[in-house]
Amino acid sequence: MSEINRRIVLASRPHGEPTPAHFRLEKAAVPVPRDGEVLLRNRYLSLDPYMRGRMSAAKSYAKPVEINEVMVGGTVAEVVASHRPDFSVGDTVVTSYGGWQDFAVSDGSDLRRIDPAAAPVSTALGVLGMPGMTAYTGLLNIGAPKPGETVVVAAATGPVGSLVGQIAKLKGARAVGIAGGADKCRHLTEELGFDAAVDHRTGDLPAALAAACPDGIDVYFENVGGAVFDAVLPLLNDFARIPVCGLVANYNMTELPPGPDKTPALMRAVLSRRLLFRGFIVWDFRDQLQDFLTDVSGWLREGRIHYREDVVEGLESAPEAFIGLLKGRNFGKLVVKL
Amino acid sequence: MSEINRRIVLASRPHGEPTPAHFRLEKAAVPVPRDGEVLLRNRYLSLDPYMRGRMSAAKSYAKPVEINEVMVGGTVAEVVASHRPDFSVGDTVVTSYGGWQDFAVSDGSDLRRIDPAAAPVSTALGVLGMPGMTAYTGLLNIGAPKPGETVVVAAATGPVGSLVGQIAKLKGARAVGIAGGADKCRHLTEELGFDAAVDHRTGDLPAALAAACPDGIDVYFENVGGAVFDAVLPLLNDFARIPVCGLVANYNMTELPPGPDKTPALMRAVLSRRLLFRGFIVWDFRDQLQDFLTDVSGWLREGRIHYREDVVEGLESAPEAFIGLLKGRNFGKLVVKL
Repeated sequence: MSEINRRIVLASRPHGEPTPAHFRLEKAAVPVPRDGEVLLRNRYLSLDPYMRGRMSAAKSYAKPVEINEVMVGGTVAEVVASHRPDFSVGDTVVTSYGGWQDFAVSDGSDLRRIDPAAAPVSTALGVLGMPGMTAYTGLLNIGAPKPGETVVVAAATGPVGSLVGQIAKLKGARAVGIAGGADKCRHLTEELGFDAAVDHRTGDLPAALAAACPDGIDVYFENVGGAVFDAVLPLLNDFARIPVCGLVANYNMTELPPGPDKTPALMRAVLSRRLLFRGFIVWDFRDQLQDFLTDVSGWLREGRIHYREDVVEGLESAPEAFIGLLKGRNFGKLVVKL
Repeated sequence: MSEINRRIVLASRPHGEPTPAHFRLEKAAVPVPRDGEVLLRNRYLSLDPYMRGRMSAAKSYAKPVEINEVMVGGTVAEVVASHRPDFSVGDTVVTSYGGWQDFAVSDGSDLRRIDPAAAPVSTALGVLGMPGMTAYTGLLNIGAPKPGETVVVAAATGPVGSLVGQIAKLKGARAVGIAGGADKCRHLTEELGFDAAVDHRTGDLPAALAAACPDGIDVYFENVGGAVFDAVLPLLNDFARIPVCGLVANYNMTELPPGPDKTPALMRAVLSRRLLFRGFIVWDFRDQLQDFLTDVSGWLREGRIHYREDVVEGLESAPEAFIGLLKGRNFGKLVVKL
């Protein structure tokens, strides 16, 4: 193959907000698959907040990306060469390890074949992929909303938040979304069927959220932290459940915020209101993949849930798009079309 | 009845640590039971950390004691007059609402008859009562220790902590207790069978706890908060469970501690290590009362668990004893013999 593999590597570790200088676009030879491997041509690259964590050296649930290593990322790809009986040239697959690059080699263990006739293939990175499954498993296993309860989620037009709210509705709960800007808020109530939307950019978030949640909050799906969490905490009802899925507001934090230390107030709320906080990542529930795909595909086909994508063109656009994602600039699931 | 009812009322609300001046010993007429009521003569009064919460006006899971109202407290009592068919004069009962006083009237709904031949009646306030059930339900429902896991509990010679550690051992886990002073630590390992004891009064608690938990911590039964929690947090393993039962170190806190605000660090740990925090009070599990009594009575009879009481004489001693309880001065379950 005479083509080259364009790839974006981590050039240096950011301290605080990443900038384009933390990434480097390189050209390399297309990798050659060995026995038992396949060669993938990436078609769509997913950009997700968790990638900020991989840019740091701090210990977490996954190991960091090393300097000069290709940035990690899920992709939808086409099999362009195969030394495996279970994958054929032309197959469309999704993988968590395609990376920010044109081509990738895989031993097949990370690949799931998808049917391009069933849904647009990019949805395998969003509503029918990792973000969708994050919403589904975190909400249903930890949040466990009951009919009539109030479910609150921030980053609510994103791929996780939008599905959290829509599944909450399907389960008979009241869905309140927090988003930045009037367009996003309108999308929540008019397109996605949320009961209320709160714009975190206007005025007094605690008062606006309280007004949107007259019966308090029973499930808060935590994916942002920061000021939203501070507004949520006083509204949590007895026995509220808080699946902790992400903390985007903290990802660029370089030091702890100034005092006082509010930890004792948080713990007092946990005790006196009998709150449940539980951190999770989607793969903690990997045995529920088939249930997720069956349920959400069905809801999509029946028109009971909707999704929105924010598609950016070209690998070279990935760093800027990712930086914008951390600031909430995207509107819908952010994917890069390669 | 010509006797009088001595009772201790809340004289004023403490700001910070309670002192004897916040209590007042009064003499009143013995209450007269009406139709459907019984008159109780209290024999043992339980003193427990939760009472500090009831002395404050702040909203919590139970309403505060009002000024000039009798201090709330569980008692073991004798029925001395009965206008109910289900209780007879001479019955021994336990109630959560006997109060800091010689006599109380009850409509029977809060009473449970106990058999003085089965165990010393004071145990109905400790190992076979509310503290014991707190340990049993919190550890088994939320902590859910598995064989080989490490369970850590502070205030470990108290009625809750001592049972948490001993049940952890019965379930095949490793039990590490934190207590104040060499005598208490010796009691933990030599009498109660804990695998290790850490004295929070000597030197470097984080280092001592780390040394006692070479495989990290899988269950931390939280009943103190403060410096112990700070030492525990870095040692929590992935998927650790933290039943939040009490926060004695915070109960006298008058303002939040100085910064930085460590909440983001706590939430980051919840997310990246997939921790579970869940607050509870014993009555959230009231349907498990019979299981608790059956199991723990059995373990006691078989000599598989042990308990220790710290008995103080006379109602007038209750305020000082309670103030000492909040400082860890008691050694074992604190009860007042009336």
